[in-house]
Amino acid sequence: MIQGLAEEQRLPGAIVHGGLVWLVGGAADDASLDTGGQTADVLRQADAPLVQAGTDKRRLLSVTAVLADVRGAPAMNPSWNGWFDPATKPARMTIGAALVDPSWRVEVTGVAALDGRGARNA
Amino acid sequence: MIQGLAEEQRLPGAIVHGGLVWLVGGAADDASLDTGGQTADVLRQADAPLVQAGTDKRRLLSVTAVLADVRGAPAMNPSWNGWFDPATKPARMTIGAALVDPSWRVEVTGVAALDGRGARNA
Amino acid sequence: MIQGLAEEQRLPGAIVHGGLVWLVGGAADDASLDTGGQTADVLRQADAPLVQAGTDKRRLLSVTAVLADVRGAPAMNPSWNGWFDPATKPARMTIGAALVDPSWRVEVTGVAALDGRGARNA
Repeated sequence: MIQGLAEEQRLPGAIVHGGLVWLVGGAADDASLDTGGQTADVLRQADAPLVQAGTDKRRLLSVTAVLADVRGAPAMNPSWNGWFDPATKPARMTIGAALVDPSWRVEVTGVAALDGRGARNA
Repeated sequence: MIQGLAEEQRLPGAIVHGGLVWLVGGAADDASLDTGGQTADVLRQADAPLVQAGTDKRRLLSVTAVLADVRGAPAMNPSWNGWFDPATKPARMTIGAALVDPSWRVEVTGVAALDGRGARNA
Repeated sequence: MIQGLAEEQRLPGAIVHGGLVWLVGGAADDASLDTGGQTADVLRQADAPLVQAGTDKRRLLSVTAVLADVRGAPAMNPSWNGWFDPATKPARMTIGAALVDPSWRVEVTGVAALDGRGARNA
């Protein structure tokens, strides 16, 4: 079973090692969007590295969302709730802090499990 | 031994998977408390998901503390030092950033190990 | 193979458990340095706990860099790129937030893999 775990891989957008997938901090491709739109954009972009690593959003374990203006948290939530299945939301912390590009409204990072050990039978 | 690891569980306050427990970012129930009081409140609340997952605060590996006002760091420390055993403090990073509810003085998240693999014989 | 993993150890600067090394949030010893200099100082200091744990910077999986002033991100990058091998950079999130000591320009934390399971054959 251990042998079945992916060896370390460096994918665009993620590092895979020992049954975990560490996402690179991601921001929206379209920075003209508002907080809700940028959130949807960022989450959508996370699908590719998760799938390439052999997992998906249902196996995200913990996510940190950093908002340029923390008052945008309510605007973030509909996009969040639309992307995640209610039964498989990760642990989350949301804070407000400065982001590298002033046009970014939100940056998201997180860690997911790979399929194959202790994973949900979904 | 691998078989003894908990399958993924979604507890109130934590996600358990593959030998690790990922805490949800937690804030004080009583937001009228000062920074020291909110810290004690948040840490006390973390006991329940840790115990429900089959571990406890001695197996916290890494914790992030986010203070609404970073100048509150000295006021946080007595509560921190009172909750942790000196021999089993986790790795910590403390920063100052905006929190979702303006009455929160501190939010804490972290990751703990489950008993059963590489755990301290305590 | 599992048996070969380090038991939990609490090193100065890191917690080791179950194949992962959790770095303590680190700041520069010489806080008179500018952002680039403090970044180089912090990263250099991370070598010791990584090596003591039995790994090295090539096995860092995920790193968070917190800048006191996020506009210092470009000044951080040459030190970053000088310390990491381009082939083995970790997932990174960079944000701007207040640090505990006002003379600190940057604080860095992260998680590395131990040699021995799923590790790069380098």
